[in-house]
Amino acid sequence: MRVHVQNDPADPAFAITEPQWRAAAADEPPHAVSFAADVDGFAAARDAMELLVAPPAALRRLRPLVAPRLKLVFLNAAGVDAIAPFDWLPAGAVLLNNRGTHGPKAGEYVAMAALMLAARLPALAGAQHAGRWQPIHAATLAGRHALVIGTGDLGSAGARALRALGVRTTGVNTTGRRHPDFDAIAPASAIDALLPQADILVLACPLTPATHHLLDRRRLGLLPAHAGLVNIGRGELLEQDALREALAQGRLSGAVLDVVTPEPLPDGHPLWTTPNLIVTPHISCDDPATYSARSLAILFANLRAWRAGDALPNRVDLARGY
Amino acid sequence: MRVHVQNDPADPAFAITEPQWRAAAADEPPHAVSFAADVDGFAAARDAMELLVAPPAALRRLRPLVAPRLKLVFLNAAGVDAIAPFDWLPAGAVLLNNRGTHGPKAGEYVAMAALMLAARLPALAGAQHAGRWQPIHAATLAGRHALVIGTGDLGSAGARALRALGVRTTGVNTTGRRHPDFDAIAPASAIDALLPQADILVLACPLTPATHHLLDRRRLGLLPAHAGLVNIGRGELLEQDALREALAQGRLSGAVLDVVTPEPLPDGHPLWTTPNLIVTPHISCDDPATYSARSLAILFANLRAWRAGDALPNRVDLARGY
Repeated sequence: MRVHVQNDPADPAFAITEPQWRAAAADEPPHAVSFAADVDGFAAARDAMELLVAPPAALRRLRPLVAPRLKLVFLNAAGVDAIAPFDWLPAGAVLLNNRGTHGPKAGEYVAMAALMLAARLPALAGAQHAGRWQPIHAATLAGRHALVIGTGDLGSAGARALRALGVRTTGVNTTGRRHPDFDAIAPASAIDALLPQADILVLACPLTPATHHLLDRRRLGLLPAHAGLVNIGRGELLEQDALREALAQGRLSGAVLDVVTPEPLPDGHPLWTTPNLIVTPHISCDDPATYSARSLAILFANLRAWRAGDALPNRVDLARGY
Repeated sequence: MRVHVQNDPADPAFAITEPQWRAAAADEPPHAVSFAADVDGFAAARDAMELLVAPPAALRRLRPLVAPRLKLVFLNAAGVDAIAPFDWLPAGAVLLNNRGTHGPKAGEYVAMAALMLAARLPALAGAQHAGRWQPIHAATLAGRHALVIGTGDLGSAGARALRALGVRTTGVNTTGRRHPDFDAIAPASAIDALLPQADILVLACPLTPATHHLLDRRRLGLLPAHAGLVNIGRGELLEQDALREALAQGRLSGAVLDVVTPEPLPDGHPLWTTPNLIVTPHISCDDPATYSARSLAILFANLRAWRAGDALPNRVDLARGY
């Protein structure tokens, strides 16, 4: 298969390099592969490419995507919201994502964030920043209940990490289908009923029209005041102004956000100075030491399925948006 | 036995209350117990008391401790450094501590701190406070190596938590005696050789003349630049000025300190503004929801040993200082 890898020149740490490709492809049938980070490199490969591998930022710059022999686009990211809607995808081409790459880092971030929220670290960090010695004593995380919205790669990795810390987990997915990493599973229709029982709420689902502002002002009000929030999905999953108010007014104990609206968060944005809040710059799920190798292993598993005529495990359902 | 509980009026969250005593003593032989938080209350109980239960701050105010029938002093704390030297202890009286109370909280704090250090949270929190969106991508904590100084209640709880996160642990104690919670154990004489191999260094040992400035400027220089430091022992275990310089100059990736010198850290202290540092106000190991119950269970186990004429598991070795 003719493969073209288009990297993002602004994000070299997550580029797929030729040595990485060669290492990952060692046991695969041979592919003719080209690599580029500029438009000219893409143009040179365009007419022949059958598989395009690219992160969202690179793909956005190639739209409208004209490549007459293109059969597969492998997005080197899990969330496809940044490249939706998908009208730029050539007719007949299939979109894959790298779902499965992010679990180990995501699980550690969720564990860290939950421990920080249980220990009131967002408030303690605020006191540190103000130069105030202000002890807050808090109970352990173990024994508490986490509600995890999303049972995919991120949510299930988070649940495994939380379970190892003695946290009881309830996962939420669209239909309530069972998942072995959670103590209980509920459908999205049960969210309102579950929020009052959450000590920790983890947002780990894709951003789609159906999940935009899933955690709105009304639902924020259903959380107990001692609850803490973790967001590793997308900033637009929640109503950010309502969250800021809840944190400032003590109607929520704390929040740890790795994703916000907009990104990057601009200078002077009120989120920078919201109390009881830790903001990290969208780093929760991406391990540069393993990212390319994990993504390529997933890509090759899909290519094996493609050759066998099987369903592609990472095919994105364009209508559903993940 | 005539028991007197002397609480610290400045720290009501950790007072041992009469209902807590009654709940813990339900299955114990009857004791005559008095409770006080003031000097008059102590004076009224003094001549009869055989067992005194008190936290360090309360005990310090009672020195010199005159109580003619005193046989046992149960310090409601693990570290006895704040009440050393022990010349105030009546001749023949035995000092006990509550070693064993702090493990669950300590383990969670060590897990949190190690995850934060692996994710470069101290640097990210600094960027947040400066209002700067500054992504730092880091590898997982899993697979790294933690060196834990101290294999007592705190260190072993930390090791169990780290092991659950996929961290390889080496524990250090005075003689190198084995401990099942660690992957390896080394004697204190091996510290210099082990520091260059540490990704995470955890200080979790008692403060004694032998451990004062255990992590001095020279030993800080033996750590790899990517290493992170956690201190849940005592501030005086390390040479704080040398640590500040190492953090400011990037010779150490980050630190999470729950104990510092002095406490409380005063306004304007340079530690408040040291980069790549998270300081918490001595809250790492104390869970107010379970503290009294855990301490009293330990006290009663020691009283059972006392009645049986057995060695007291929580007897403090006054010469050793823990």
